[in-house]
Amino acid sequence: MKQARHSDSIVFEPRNPNYSKRVREAFEGQPMLTSLGMVMAEIAPGYCELHLPYRPEISQNHGYFHGGAIATLADVSGGFAGWSLLPEGMWIVTVEYKTNIVAPGQGEMLIGRGRVIRSGRSLTTTEIEVLALVEGEEQLCATALQTLMSVEAQS
Amino acid sequence: MKQARHSDSIVFEPRNPNYSKRVREAFEGQPMLTSLGMVMAEIAPGYCELHLPYRPEISQNHGYFHGGAIATLADVSGGFAGWSLLPEGMWIVTVEYKTNIVAPGQGEMLIGRGRVIRSGRSLTTTEIEVLALVEGEEQLCATALQTLMSVEAQS
Amino acid sequence: MKQARHSDSIVFEPRNPNYSKRVREAFEGQPMLTSLGMVMAEIAPGYCELHLPYRPEISQNHGYFHGGAIATLADVSGGFAGWSLLPEGMWIVTVEYKTNIVAPGQGEMLIGRGRVIRSGRSLTTTEIEVLALVEGEEQLCATALQTLMSVEAQS
Amino acid sequence: MKQARHSDSIVFEPRNPNYSKRVREAFEGQPMLTSLGMVMAEIAPGYCELHLPYRPEISQNHGYFHGGAIATLADVSGGFAGWSLLPEGMWIVTVEYKTNIVAPGQGEMLIGRGRVIRSGRSLTTTEIEVLALVEGEEQLCATALQTLMSVEAQS
Repeated sequence: MKQARHSDSIVFEPRNPNYSKRVREAFEGQPMLTSLGMVMAEIAPGYCELHLPYRPEISQNHGYFHGGAIATLADVSGGFAGWSLLPEGMWIVTVEYKTNIVAPGQGEMLIGRGRVIRSGRSLTTTEIEVLALVEGEEQLCATALQTLMSVEAQS
Repeated sequence: MKQARHSDSIVFEPRNPNYSKRVREAFEGQPMLTSLGMVMAEIAPGYCELHLPYRPEISQNHGYFHGGAIATLADVSGGFAGWSLLPEGMWIVTVEYKTNIVAPGQGEMLIGRGRVIRSGRSLTTTEIEVLALVEGEEQLCATALQTLMSVEAQS
Repeated sequence: MKQARHSDSIVFEPRNPNYSKRVREAFEGQPMLTSLGMVMAEIAPGYCELHLPYRPEISQNHGYFHGGAIATLADVSGGFAGWSLLPEGMWIVTVEYKTNIVAPGQGEMLIGRGRVIRSGRSLTTTEIEVLALVEGEEQLCATALQTLMSVEAQS
Repeated sequence: MKQARHSDSIVFEPRNPNYSKRVREAFEGQPMLTSLGMVMAEIAPGYCELHLPYRPEISQNHGYFHGGAIATLADVSGGFAGWSLLPEGMWIVTVEYKTNIVAPGQGEMLIGRGRVIRSGRSLTTTEIEVLALVEGEEQLCATALQTLMSVEAQS
């Protein structure tokens, strides 16, 4: 019998009551995300959903979303999921991540859903799904596994 | 609101009615798995659960399960999950995988749960959780993301 | 004694005499790369070097290159290295890659150097270094390991 | 023109004059490595070479080295390369690694060569090549990219 994922049973508590505001500020402070046209759709403790509407400027040879846009969406969806659990005065940086692109980035919008699976003192591990919204239906486009590190915020 | 994982909604159909027998034969044909003491616990279409009871021979400096045992369990749990969807006459090989070890391999047994998230003609993508069973309770030990390739069986 | 890398001893032969022209066409056909301001600096059999000059539009919170720009540069540097070895009529797609960001993306330019370490019939493996050019000096910014797949070109 | 790898130009200084002795003790303290039959062949600052002679007990279905043996060799070759740069009183644990298996593990022996490419206060990044020795000739079998973390030694 197929078991449920253990990591889906873990509940995370925010260490900063203003986590939502902090994450949104961090999101808005990154010019690259604005350039791409990314939108923050949802933030919850250990979870983040971002949207990336289609634009020709972020496409590849066949008019699909470019792999770089897919990977960036995966990276920051995981990153902000981790950020939601930070104490005040800390920032998060990406140590590394791996992305499997399982289908072309077709459709009108990409959706990135990052979820923390382990939140340590220094390191945080996240898993991310990137979905392609094709005529209103979600299709799996990419999956990623990421390591983040907490660092003291630069003033 | 935290969404369910898209990949958990995908249902896979076996292409070989004898998939369970084929996977068990492939498992038993690998001397390394017997050497480690691994046991096949469950096989379903696109899913495999393997158990690895503790033995000092597969431990590291502190008496925990060695990282090599954790990684091997992750690799083959994903591999046999992919194998369950193969048509007759095909084999599967690991192209690559990435493992995050999120906690030491403590306890009396490791449990590997591999699940296919995409099954293509040539390539299969899987995700794996490795749980440590500590005094009867499951703890997340490692998570992995893997690419497999189907090849024609060598006669 | 520290040995030289085995993969650095492998010499690759192009299967298409017009490989350089083909790669440059593929590069120019990707609007996302133009949007980012990427420049193809060098193409050789199994090797590609790309440059990405700094622009505020691709920065993160501290004014450094955004991780998404670093990852995109890694991905396509490896991708075009693989593309250089394709026979006529084939394309290449990224199956997966993993990037370790080892230092912030500082400086006036990023340099991506992708090299093929194994070129198979269907799958190609590449390694990529991303260097940050800081006051004229190269610093290691990221390293990546990538799997590519050859597919028949869509007409 | 194909450039040399930047990471090959980095020279690492040991922080512990007894690093060689410390690494060998750590190696010998891991029962799993003895069970597999692994041998430490070379240790230098930021570099480690390990050998794994063929034995049927660590093989897969076709009599080649099992993928689990290949991955374990990659993991510990990188791990001990990182260990060689530790100050006294510290240990190293694997945070994560990714392995691409580019050819079957054939032949009489596997050789793992791990090299540090970045040594930070907390995190260390390594790259590893696994070679298969086939009738005396080295063939690339696998390549890996790894993150290690320094921790205070448990007494």
